[in-house]
Amino acid sequence: MQMFELQWSSAEKQVARKAFNAALEREKDAVVMETQARAARIRTIDDVWALEHWLTRRRQEIDAKYDYRYSVLPIVFGHLMHEGSLAEQDLTGLAPEKLDCIRGIAQR
Amino acid sequence: MQMFELQWSSAEKQVARKAFNAALEREKDAVVMETQARAARIRTIDDVWALEHWLTRRRQEIDAKYDYRYSVLPIVFGHLMHEGSLAEQDLTGLAPEKLDCIRGIAQR
Repeated sequence: MQMFELQWSSAEKQVARKAFNAALEREKDAVVMETQARAARIRTIDDVWALEHWLTRRRQEIDAKYDYRYSVLPIVFGHLMHEGSLAEQDLTGLAPEKLDCIRGIAQR
Repeated sequence: MQMFELQWSSAEKQVARKAFNAALEREKDAVVMETQARAARIRTIDDVWALEHWLTRRRQEIDAKYDYRYSVLPIVFGHLMHEGSLAEQDLTGLAPEKLDCIRGIAQR
């Protein structure tokens, strides 16, 4: 089954949205904490521009990674699971074919 | 006299370079301190992206402002003097026509 053919029920959309938002919030919290830690180590202007560079990269990574379109959501969840940002139990309630697809991407 | 016609003696170049570098160092030091202060106030992800935005703007401003080409140096010094980043005594040793030009820009 192609991913773009997957149909999302209303209940599945709720599960998906909750898992997506929770992962995004965790990632944002991690960026806040990491920024505080990096900022506390700033001594020189080079440290400052290194922080700016890192922040820009993290923002772009997050923007690219968190794409809530149903057509790409299994890929998004697969990647999040692969990097350990999402657990399979976060997706409890999704239809088996979606979980198979997500698991398949996660295990690549 | 057009600025691009100004000739810089070796002694003047030394004065200019020293004043330029000192102003740039002061500006960098100010950015380091301001970054530390802003970073210490970070609580949310919005604070983080606001810091990134501010850092990018400051970097671009500094890149644009500190242009060490003799053809534009009087303008650069004039702007620095205008904003209080450079004092006339920092430029002691420059020829009177250069100081007139710099002062003219500073007073705009």
